[in-house]
This record gives sequence, C-alpha cells and structure tokens, in this order.
Amino acid sequence: MTPSIKNIDIVDVEFGENVTVVKPVNLYGCRIGDGTFVGPFVEIQRNAVVGKNCKIQSHAFICELVEIGDNCVVSHGVMFINDLFKTGKPAFRDKTLWKATKIGSNVLFGSNSTILPVTIVDGVVIGAGSVVTKNLLIKGIYAGNPAKLLRKL
Amino acid sequence: MTPSIKNIDIVDVEFGENVTVVKPVNLYGCRIGDGTFVGPFVEIQRNAVVGKNCKIQSHAFICELVEIGDNCVVSHGVMFINDLFKTGKPAFRDKTLWKATKIGSNVLFGSNSTILPVTIVDGVVIGAGSVVTKNLLIKGIYAGNPAKLLRKL
Amino acid sequence: MTPSIKNIDIVDVEFGENVTVVKPVNLYGCRIGDGTFVGPFVEIQRNAVVGKNCKIQSHAFICELVEIGDNCVVSHGVMFINDLFKTGKPAFRDKTLWKATKIGSNVLFGSNSTILPVTIVDGVVIGAGSVVTKNLLIKGIYAGNPAKLLRKL
Repeated sequence: MTPSIKNIDIVDVEFGENVTVVKPVNLYGCRIGDGTFVGPFVEIQRNAVVGKNCKIQSHAFICELVEIGDNCVVSHGVMFINDLFKTGKPAFRDKTLWKATKIGSNVLFGSNSTILPVTIVDGVVIGAGSVVTKNLLIKGIYAGNPAKLLRKL
Repeated sequence: MTPSIKNIDIVDVEFGENVTVVKPVNLYGCRIGDGTFVGPFVEIQRNAVVGKNCKIQSHAFICELVEIGDNCVVSHGVMFINDLFKTGKPAFRDKTLWKATKIGSNVLFGSNSTILPVTIVDGVVIGAGSVVTKNLLIKGIYAGNPAKLLRKL
Repeated sequence: MTPSIKNIDIVDVEFGENVTVVKPVNLYGCRIGDGTFVGPFVEIQRNAVVGKNCKIQSHAFICELVEIGDNCVVSHGVMFINDLFKTGKPAFRDKTLWKATKIGSNVLFGSNSTILPVTIVDGVVIGAGSVVTKNLLIKGIYAGNPAKLLRKL
C-alpha cells in the first residue's frame, strides 16, 4: 500500500520579529517570540508557546500545552511531554487527560533532558540527561533521574 | 574529498493500509502495519516490524531485529538497540552478535527512553527517560535507569 | 512576521576519503576522517573533529570543541555538550566559558547517552542512556546517571 505522506515543514506558525529557523523542522500552529532561534530537526506542536530570545536547539521536541517564557535555552534532544499514560493507556485525542507545562523565563534545560508536565519557575537550571518529574518551584540547579535540587541559585 | 551522499527517504518499505508518514524520515526494508503513524525525524531499519495502529513519534529510532506488536506508542526520542558492545567492540556486520527485541501489543514507551534488546509483554508502560536493560515479563509500569517495576497493572 | 530560514545541509566540511553521509544532516565547518559514516538527522558543528572509520549514528549531535579519535561509534541520539551553564546562565558567544571534550580511539558511546565536556581514553565503552559527567581515564565499561565504572577491560 502507499502511505499518506505529509510534508509539514512550517505551517500556521506565528513568528515574532528576528526569528531564525534552521531546516529541516516540523513546526505547526505554534507561537514563537521575537529573537528566538530554532535549530534543525526540531518539532513544535500546535498551541505550544515559546517566548522571546530563546534558543531551541537541534532535536528538541515541544508539545501542545507547553508554554515557555523568555530567554530560555532548550538544549539538544530535550523532550517535553503532555500524556503521562496514567491510565496505562495513551490519551490520544481525549485532551481532558493531557497535562500542561508552564516554564518561566531564564530557564535552561540541559541536553537530552526529559520534562514531564510540570511548572518551573524563573531561573532554574536543569542538568543534562535529567528527567524532571515534579514542579520545580525553587530557583536552583537540578539534575538526575528523577531530577533533584543540587543547589539554590 | 566529496563524500558519498545517500538520500534514502523511504525505500523498500511494506506498508499496511492507512499508514501516515510525516517527512523527513529514513525508512528502509521494514514492515509497518495498518493504521500506524510515523512522525518526522524517524529512522526504521531493515527487517524491523511495527504492528497495526501504532504511533511512532518524532525522533524515534527502531533498529533491525526489533519486532513491535499492535497498538503500541513509541514516544519521541525513544531508541532501540541491537548491539550491546558486549565484547568491548562494535559487532558491525557480524550479526551473530546482534540481539533481538520482541515487544508485545499495547506497550507504551515514554519519551527519551532507551530500550536494550529485551522481551516486553503486552500492556507494559515505560516511563519517560527510562533505560530498559532486562526483560519486562510482568504487566506493569516501569521507570528509572535501570528501569524497575513501580506497580503492576 | 517571516523568519530567517537557513538550509545549511553541508557547508565548509573537510571530508576524508570514502566518507558516507545519509541526508538530511546539518554539518558545517567540521572535519570528518577517512571511512567515517554519518547517519541521518545528525548535526556536527564548526571546528568539531571526527577521526577515521567512525560511525556517527542517526540523531547524534557533536558540538564545537569536541574531538573524537579513530574507530569510535557514536550511537543514535548521543549528545555532546560544551556549555555547562555553570554560572546559571548560558555562555552563548563567550567562548571562554565553553569547555572542550577529547575522546580517544575505539571509544563506543551507547545510544541516548549524554556526554558533558570530559576526556575519555582509548577503548572505553559507555552504556546506553548514560550521563558522563567526569573524565574516564581507565579503559572499561561505564554506565548510569552519572556514569560509573562497571568493569575494567
């Protein structure tokens, strides 16, 4: 059989001023603020919001229901999540089961870190390879699987 | 010097009915079942088998000798493995050193999880960022590095 | 607004003989030795050096200030790092804050491992999903987050 092939590339994205995008990317229905950089092999889904002067590095994935403030760095290979498979099944189109993520400004995500649906305050730094499973409400450096506070900033 | 450049894209893939593929992808010599979705930046290698109604999300990598059942979700950035470097050297073309992975149906792989060559039974859920190093023969939720059983389902 | 779109693909790369590259890739200003293979969805940055007969697998990211010897395998989804966010802020263009990584020959990096700026001696094997945070100066197999020596080779 022949599959249905989609070439989304960039569709229905609301870009601010002076945004730079390195292709190939898969961006649709999202909002990307002034001065933000988006590297190659990045997917940003519908309704995701990225603030101003952020760097979204190669291989990052930002899903629906994620909102990121200004001056954040989402390093290479960082993955956000909105479905926790809590029921042991995927939520698929039942969005009442999806969870939101709210990221402050000046938050730095180390490479290959994995971010469950949480709230993270301004100025938090997350070490490379961490898995963030809880809200990070104290400004500090966190690392590990699951990520724990290493020191306050 | 000029390198040898390959544009594989989609070559020799056996698709079922109603498969959707979002480009760019790198799919060759594999089998993908009815109703399955394959996201962008996905590589699926020769002889890998993906069942029906699965979701293979962006940035996933499925290697040779991996067989996945029906209704599975392979989330973003999940990597399968067939060479454990057991001898301290890569197996390369010596396929007698490669190991197989056998995944049941209704298995959910959290984002950025890493799956060594194992057997996983129906209905298992693997947390985001986990590293699966052993067979998972009890239906349940597993997480961590190495992944451990959190609770039965 | 309309973003500035870049299609870098392959720019200013110094290739040795018999290099193979599977597109799409994002390679610029780097040096890649004889006989090396570069898979799809790979980014290699300016001034990075990859030796001879290496395999740089799909979804890998090799940054500036990384130097890799001969006969190494950088598996799928491996991410190198040069900015540790030590000050709680990104280094951006202040390269005095960037740190270098020096990898010997015959080093094998398991899939989805994350490599902070370190020195690694010849013949080291790093398990899949590991986070390498320190120099690895003894030839052996390392794994975990943070990666620890499992056994000498």
